[in-house]
Amino acid sequence: MKIDGTPYRTIWVAADNWSVEIIDQTKLPHAFVTASLKSLEDAAQAIETMQVRGAPLIGATAAYGVALAMRVDASDEALDAACARLLETRPTAVNLRWALDTMRDHLHNCEQSARAAAAYAQAAKICDDDVATCRAIGEHGAQLIRDAWLAADQGRPVNILTHCNAGWLATVDWGTALAPIYRAHDDGVPVHIWVDETRPRNQGAALTAWEIGKHGIDHTLIVDNAGGHLMQHGLVDLCITGTDRTTSTGDVCNKIGTYLKALAAHDNGVPFYVGLPHSTIDWTLEDGVRDIPIEERDPSEVSELSGLALDGSITSIRISPEASKAANYAFDVTPARLVTGLITERGVCSASREGLLGLYPEHANSVTEEAR
Amino acid sequence: MKIDGTPYRTIWVAADNWSVEIIDQTKLPHAFVTASLKSLEDAAQAIETMQVRGAPLIGATAAYGVALAMRVDASDEALDAACARLLETRPTAVNLRWALDTMRDHLHNCEQSARAAAAYAQAAKICDDDVATCRAIGEHGAQLIRDAWLAADQGRPVNILTHCNAGWLATVDWGTALAPIYRAHDDGVPVHIWVDETRPRNQGAALTAWEIGKHGIDHTLIVDNAGGHLMQHGLVDLCITGTDRTTSTGDVCNKIGTYLKALAAHDNGVPFYVGLPHSTIDWTLEDGVRDIPIEERDPSEVSELSGLALDGSITSIRISPEASKAANYAFDVTPARLVTGLITERGVCSASREGLLGLYPEHANSVTEEAR
Repeated sequence: MKIDGTPYRTIWVAADNWSVEIIDQTKLPHAFVTASLKSLEDAAQAIETMQVRGAPLIGATAAYGVALAMRVDASDEALDAACARLLETRPTAVNLRWALDTMRDHLHNCEQSARAAAAYAQAAKICDDDVATCRAIGEHGAQLIRDAWLAADQGRPVNILTHCNAGWLATVDWGTALAPIYRAHDDGVPVHIWVDETRPRNQGAALTAWEIGKHGIDHTLIVDNAGGHLMQHGLVDLCITGTDRTTSTGDVCNKIGTYLKALAAHDNGVPFYVGLPHSTIDWTLEDGVRDIPIEERDPSEVSELSGLALDGSITSIRISPEASKAANYAFDVTPARLVTGLITERGVCSASREGLLGLYPEHANSVTEEAR
Repeated sequence: MKIDGTPYRTIWVAADNWSVEIIDQTKLPHAFVTASLKSLEDAAQAIETMQVRGAPLIGATAAYGVALAMRVDASDEALDAACARLLETRPTAVNLRWALDTMRDHLHNCEQSARAAAAYAQAAKICDDDVATCRAIGEHGAQLIRDAWLAADQGRPVNILTHCNAGWLATVDWGTALAPIYRAHDDGVPVHIWVDETRPRNQGAALTAWEIGKHGIDHTLIVDNAGGHLMQHGLVDLCITGTDRTTSTGDVCNKIGTYLKALAAHDNGVPFYVGLPHSTIDWTLEDGVRDIPIEERDPSEVSELSGLALDGSITSIRISPEASKAANYAFDVTPARLVTGLITERGVCSASREGLLGLYPEHANSVTEEAR
């Protein structure tokens, strides 16, 4: 997507044809800074320090980390060591493991002398595949936005509410939940986005507001508490969020608070869509609320915030009494009954086993076996 | 209620028998500081700068502001001027107008020489009446908590979720939503409170967590996004919130985000109660979502937060891009169908016209006329 008119991806090979550039997302939204990755360790630390985040982008960064390692030493031992080092950066990230397995399987079949070049090519393919997937989600989802525009008073923009950041900053380009918004905007459909700030880590306020603003999309930041009121008063035409994990039955595990917005959408007849690549679907899961363990993160993310102080420095503040404990559940599960549709790279389907198998019939066996 | 074991009200006459002491709530939760009001202007500024807030406490402070004015000049002109000055501090506050009308009506019937003493006596009565009202809400609501404790596994505390601050800091003592919690706790019923931080102004994180912590009640701070997840997993036994305005049909206008919690409670079979004095009931209103205008406050409350920096200073930070606009709706309306019961000073009733008229039969005519 564009930053002030210039197209960017979140990760790319620099003009020197070997070092890797990323957007340092820890500096957003207060400064746009790129960082150069010149070694395996640079890539690992970029993931660990969350200069890059979002499952697809973590996978892509790890793939380039392997490529940077192969430039220095293309032995089997170096390949395995690089994958091990990168895997430990975010051990629970499914895309990270998948990207590293893909790289290792591919490179083990290459001569050592060809491995560095093959690694760069494979990393580029992982990135391009992600872009194609997200672009397809955008195409399918944009049709829903266009339909909403045509169905309503075309004199006003389509109002879309989103939660957290499932945008191009979380992927290589386009994003998942935000891809339909970019596509619709670029196609000339007027949109206005309500951006949930998304406490505790404020990915909405810091990342979503920044990326859609830089692309030129009209938006308004709101607190997470506001969406229900907006929907009661007809100020939201549809909701689109992302998902970290989707059950075979269409339950959606996404950033904490997504469930509350889905309830409000349901109570007010507002369509609630979820944008996802097939890689988030866990075909072995049937009941998201029962079966998906919810990560608890550091309570200090609740009691402390950081942002830009008046003196221009990034400053942390505490908002609660020192004696008060806090709890920090990172995700919640939105039951399929509250989800109007799933927007995938293969099209839009109902949030149900039937809907998902209609688009992914090759998984019919895995689902059936699990359901027994 | 108690602060580290010492009983306090939020406003009281000092040992000198004429100056008025308040808790400076702008310093909470990071410092406990009292302020001395020695003049009409001190009282007006305490309200304007939100050293005191919460409808009942604003009314009580205004009443003492009149008393402080009468010490200096007890003429009719001075009385009217004092009321005018105090009314302009928060022109939309219903309790403020009511308290000033009460003071003026009472004092106009007094000899000028007796007005100062009468004003202090009347202000004290306003405070004592508020305490009695809140204590009664506490008595009635505590029974619900006790029932929940007896009905459940008594080996664990009753888990109660609350939103914003409807505690003793918003009243003279006890609070409205929190009064049942204090009463139950003081009666030996074990409770644990989930405290919504309540963005954008964080009254939960700053005030509710502080006041119940200082009274010795076990609690955990959460982001506003978390309550739905907690209710899905059986971690909330009941919700209790306050209300700023209640329709004759039981719709509840309260801090933004209350509606989302009521939806989650309804979806998970968790009782959702609202604590209120009769003064919040607007007998002329039938449909809260349709008829109650929602105040929009300064967007900077969404994009900026303040808290305690590492160096011990109170610091403001911005969390969003400078170019992003924000919207700040202060309240939302929870329809009566989502409210399990209203806890009033006269008892608990259903959130309905029948329920409210059962407790307040003297309003039967005002409601009927409006309904025609």
